Amino acid sequence: MSDLNPALPWLEALKWDDAGLLPAIAQDAESGRVLMFAWMNREALEETVRSGNAVYWSRSRSRLWKKGEESGHYQKVSAIRTDCDGDVILLAIAQEGGIACHTGRQSCFFHELQGGRWVPVDPVVKDPKEIYAK
Amino acid sequence: MSDLNPALPWLEALKWDDAGLLPAIAQDAESGRVLMFAWMNREALEETVRSGNAVYWSRSRSRLWKKGEESGHYQKVSAIRTDCDGDVILLAIAQEGGIACHTGRQSCFFHELQGGRWVPVDPVVKDPKEIYAK
Repeated sequence: MSDLNPALPWLEALKWDDAGLLPAIAQDAESGRVLMFAWMNREALEETVRSGNAVYWSRSRSRLWKKGEESGHYQKVSAIRTDCDGDVILLAIAQEGGIACHTGRQSCFFHELQGGRWVPVDPVVKDPKEIYAK
Repeated sequence: MSDLNPALPWLEALKWDDAGLLPAIAQDAESGRVLMFAWMNREALEETVRSGNAVYWSRSRSRLWKKGEESGHYQKVSAIRTDCDGDVILLAIAQEGGIACHTGRQSCFFHELQGGRWVPVDPVVKDPKEIYAK
C-alpha cells in the first residue's frame, strides 16, 4: 500500500476499503488505554470532526452510530490521527462516564490470553442493566 | 455481534472475518503509544503466541510477515488481549529499535488532522535507507 499523500483533500487522502470503511481505534487521551475498536465511513468521520464527538458506522445495523447515544457514554475527541498509508484512524478521546464497553467495563479489551484461555481481567464498573435501562 | 465465549478453545472463540483475518493493534507496553495496525490470520496469531514475537498476515504479499524480518525492528509481545466480541487483537509489545514504522518513525500514526490537513507531527528517528539497506 502506498503512503498517504498529504497534498490531497484530507478525506480523499484516506484509503477507504471496498465497503467505504476504515478501522478506527479509540484511545484514552490521558491514560493511553485503548478503549475500543470500530469502523467509520466518510460520513461518520466528517460528523466526528464536525461535532467533536466520536461517530462510527455500525456494520451490524448499517447506520451511523453516535457513541453514547444509548448509554450516555459519549467520546469527546481531542485529536485525530491516521497511519503511514492512511488506512486506519486513531482517535484521542475523553470517555464520558469512564466506560467505553457495553459490558460496563472501562475498555472493550478486557480479555487477556492466559495459559491458552481468554480471561476477563478487568472489573465491571457499572452493571449494563443500569446503563441501558434509562 | 455476540460476545466472546471464553468456554470455547481460544483460537475458535475469536470471530475471524470472511477472509479468515482479524485486525491487530500493537501498543507499546510501557508508553501506551499505539505503534501500528495490521492483520492476523490464525497461523500468524498462533506463531505470535508460540514465538513471543509479533507475526502478522501481509494482505498485499499474501504471506506471513514476521515484523522486523527486514528492518530488525522485531516486536516482543508481553500480553495479548481481545475485545468484548473477540474480533480484534491488542498486543502489548516492546518495540526493538524504538521504531515501528517503515518511514523510520516510532509509530505509524504520525499524521494528525490539523485545520483540514494531515500533518506529519512526529520526527523521523532513522532514515529508512539506513534501516532497509542492510
